[in-house]
Amino acid sequence: MKIVNNPNRTDWSTLATRPEFKKEEITKVVAEILSEVKLKGDEALFRYSEKFDKVKLSELVVSIQEIDSANGLMSQELKSAIEVAKSNIEKFHNSQNSAESVVETSEGVNCWRKSVGIEKVGLYIPGGSAPLFSTILMLAIPAKIAGCKEVVLCTPPDQNGQVNPAILYTANLVGITKIFKVGGAQAIGAMANGTESIPQVYKIFGPGNQFVTKAKELIQQDGVAIDMPAGPSELLVIADDSCKPAFVAADLLSQAEHGTDSQVILLSNSAKVLADVNSELDAQLTQLPRLEIAKEALSNSKSILLANIDECLDFSNQYAPEHLILASENTDDILSKIVNAGSVFIGNYSCESAGDYASGTNHTLPTNGFARNYSGVSVDSFVKKITFQKLSETGIKNIGSAIELMAEAEGLFAHKNAVSLRLKELENV
Amino acid sequence: MKIVNNPNRTDWSTLATRPEFKKEEITKVVAEILSEVKLKGDEALFRYSEKFDKVKLSELVVSIQEIDSANGLMSQELKSAIEVAKSNIEKFHNSQNSAESVVETSEGVNCWRKSVGIEKVGLYIPGGSAPLFSTILMLAIPAKIAGCKEVVLCTPPDQNGQVNPAILYTANLVGITKIFKVGGAQAIGAMANGTESIPQVYKIFGPGNQFVTKAKELIQQDGVAIDMPAGPSELLVIADDSCKPAFVAADLLSQAEHGTDSQVILLSNSAKVLADVNSELDAQLTQLPRLEIAKEALSNSKSILLANIDECLDFSNQYAPEHLILASENTDDILSKIVNAGSVFIGNYSCESAGDYASGTNHTLPTNGFARNYSGVSVDSFVKKITFQKLSETGIKNIGSAIELMAEAEGLFAHKNAVSLRLKELENV
Repeated sequence: MKIVNNPNRTDWSTLATRPEFKKEEITKVVAEILSEVKLKGDEALFRYSEKFDKVKLSELVVSIQEIDSANGLMSQELKSAIEVAKSNIEKFHNSQNSAESVVETSEGVNCWRKSVGIEKVGLYIPGGSAPLFSTILMLAIPAKIAGCKEVVLCTPPDQNGQVNPAILYTANLVGITKIFKVGGAQAIGAMANGTESIPQVYKIFGPGNQFVTKAKELIQQDGVAIDMPAGPSELLVIADDSCKPAFVAADLLSQAEHGTDSQVILLSNSAKVLADVNSELDAQLTQLPRLEIAKEALSNSKSILLANIDECLDFSNQYAPEHLILASENTDDILSKIVNAGSVFIGNYSCESAGDYASGTNHTLPTNGFARNYSGVSVDSFVKKITFQKLSETGIKNIGSAIELMAEAEGLFAHKNAVSLRLKELENV
Repeated sequence: MKIVNNPNRTDWSTLATRPEFKKEEITKVVAEILSEVKLKGDEALFRYSEKFDKVKLSELVVSIQEIDSANGLMSQELKSAIEVAKSNIEKFHNSQNSAESVVETSEGVNCWRKSVGIEKVGLYIPGGSAPLFSTILMLAIPAKIAGCKEVVLCTPPDQNGQVNPAILYTANLVGITKIFKVGGAQAIGAMANGTESIPQVYKIFGPGNQFVTKAKELIQQDGVAIDMPAGPSELLVIADDSCKPAFVAADLLSQAEHGTDSQVILLSNSAKVLADVNSELDAQLTQLPRLEIAKEALSNSKSILLANIDECLDFSNQYAPEHLILASENTDDILSKIVNAGSVFIGNYSCESAGDYASGTNHTLPTNGFARNYSGVSVDSFVKKITFQKLSETGIKNIGSAIELMAEAEGLFAHKNAVSLRLKELENV
C-alpha cells in the first residue's frame, strides 16, 4: 500500500476520492432487457437464461425436491454456523422493532405512528464465484420481523440449472417459499413488473454486478423502491500503537479480496504502525487464494500518517466509509466523534468479518460515501411508517383557529373551510 | 363527482389508477440547467433568475434586514397560529427521537445503533401562488431534532426580488440562517453541487413543480439523496352513515383545490352518503376562490359504492392514498386493517387540513401509490443510523468458528483468516 505522510488538509479531498472506474455504457442494454421482460414475461426470462446463464430451463421456480436435496448436501457444521448467525441477526434486528407511543400534542389531538411491513419485497442474491447465502440472512430476517407478507428471492442458476445448496438451504431456513432461478438485470425487471411465474414486488434489495445495479437504478422510475444506491465495498481502519498489526493487515485483506474495485484505507498517528501493517500485508497476501484480486485492490488503496487520532476521525468522517474499524484499546472517548460511517467495529477483536456474518449487525451498508446520507439495511428498510391522528371535538376547538389562519395566509380557503364548518357546528351544539 | 356503484373487484385496479397526465419531455431542459449551475455556479443562478423569475438580483442570500422587516409585516394572530403549529409539530417529532439500546447477541458480542443527523440538508420551498411556509415547519423542525448541522433553504423571489414575509418569518423562527433567493431546477442544482454562495448539501427535501421534481430525480445520480419521489396530492375518504356529509365534502374540496391534477376518491357502503356528499360538493364548490382548479380536479375523481367497510378498506389499501380520512364514529375495529396509507385522519373532527398545518404530524407524504413502499417525512428522514459492534475476547471465541465456516463456504478465505489469526493468538495466551 502506498504510504502518505502528514498530508495537508487541503489534499484530503483528493485522498478521500474513490477510484474512478470506466463505466461501460450499459444503460441501453439494461433498459432493453427490462423492457423485454415487462413485455414478454417468462418467455423473455427463459430466453435470457439461455443467453447469459447458458442453460435451458424448463421451470423458473425452485422445486421442493431441490430444496430437500440441498438440505442433504450441507454439512452439520455449516448448518450450525448458520444457526449461530441467524440467532444473532434475529436478536439484533428484533430490537429495532419498537412500538411508538401516542402523543397528545394539544388537548384532544392525539398523534402516533405505526410501522407496517411493505407487503411484497424482492431479494436478489448473486450466484457466480461466491454463493452469498449470508446475504439471505441479512435481508430475509429483517423482512420477516417487519411483517412483509410476500418475500420473493431471485438468484441465477449455474450451467446445469442448479442453485448453490447453501443458498437454497438458507432461504428455506428463514422461511422463503418463492425462490426463482433468474439472475441479472432480467431478475430485477421480473420482480419490478411481475411475470407469469414471478410476483411483482414493491421494493427490491440485494447486491449485484453492474447490470443488476443499473437495473435497480432504472426500475425506480416505475415506482419500485430499492434498498440503496450501490458502489464497490470499502474499509477504513484507524489504528494507534495499541493495535495488533497482524490483525489490521488481515482485516484490510478481507476487504481487498472482495473485488479488484474494493478500496481500503489505513489511518494512523504512528509511522511504525503503518510500516508494521504494510510488512504484515506483504507476508499474509501470499497465502491467499484470491491473491490477484486483493493485490489489485490494494494498489488503489492508501495508508496515511496523520498528526493524531482526532485528525484520523476527521478524515474518516470526510471519507464516510462503509466499514470503519477502530483498531485500538482506547476507543471510549472517540466513539461520539464518528459522524459518517456505515458500520463501526470497535477494538482489536471486532473484525469486519464478524459483522459480515455473525455478530448480528447487518452487512448491507452504504458504500461510495453514501454513509453521509444513507443508513444500512435494518428492519426500518422493510416497513413504512403510517401516521395517525384523531381529533376530538375539544381537539379541533383547540387548534382550529390556528389552522384557519395559516390556511388563509397560504391562500387555501377550502382548507380553512373544512375547519370552519366543524367549528361552526360545535358552536351550535 | 362520478358515482360508480358496486364495481367488480376485477375493475378495481382500473378505478384505482391515477390519472395519467401528458408529461412534457423536460429532462433535457432540466439536465442543461443542472449542468450550467454545476459549471458556472452563482453566475448561472443570476442568469436563470433573470430568465425565469424576471428579476435582476444583486445578492442571492436573504439579508438580516429582510428577515427583520418580514417580522414587522406579520400579524400577531398569524404569528400565534404558527407558534401553535410549531409546538405541536415539535412534540410529535420529538417522540420519534428514541435512543436504541445495546444488544448482547452472544456473550461478549455487543451491538447497537446510533442515529446521527445528516450533516448538511437542503430545503426547497416553492413560491408562486401559495407561499408554503407551513412546509418549512414540516421540514426544518425534524431537521433540528435530528441534529442536522447545516440547514439551507432555497425559495424563488418575486419580480421585485422579494421573498414572501411568512416564509422568511417562519424560516427565522425555526433557526434557519441560510436562506437563498433561488427557485426551480437551478435551486436543486445549486444545493446538490454547491456554488460560491450556496453550500452543498447531502439530502434535499421539499415539494415543487415538475422542473423541481425532475431535478431532484436527476441529482440522485450525483449521490445526493432526496426525501421521496413526488406526484400530485390525493385524498381518499371512507365514509359510513355516521359521517357528516358537509364535512366530507369540505375535506374533498380542500384536497381538490391544491391543483387540477389532485385526485380525490370517496368510498362508502351507503348510496345515501354518496348522494348527500355530492350535493354538498355542488353547494360548497361555488363559494371557493379556487373554484376552477377544484372543479377540474373533481372531474378526475370518483365516488364509489362498495358492499361494506371492509371492502372500502381493501380498495383503499390497493389505492394506497397519501391521505386517508375515516369519516365515521366507529373506527376502533378498522384501524388495524389499514396497510397502505401515508397519513390517516380518524373520525368526523380530524380533517386533513389539521394534519396539513397544526396537529403535529408531518404533511410531506408519499403520493401516487408510493404509500405502498415509502413513509412520510419524519425525524428518520434526517438521520442515518450507524451500527456499532464491540467483540471482547470472549465474544470472538464464541462466534469465531461460525464466521470461519461461513466465510470458507462463501470462498472468502481472507475473511476467515481475520478470525483465525485472532483465535490463534487467544489460544496462545
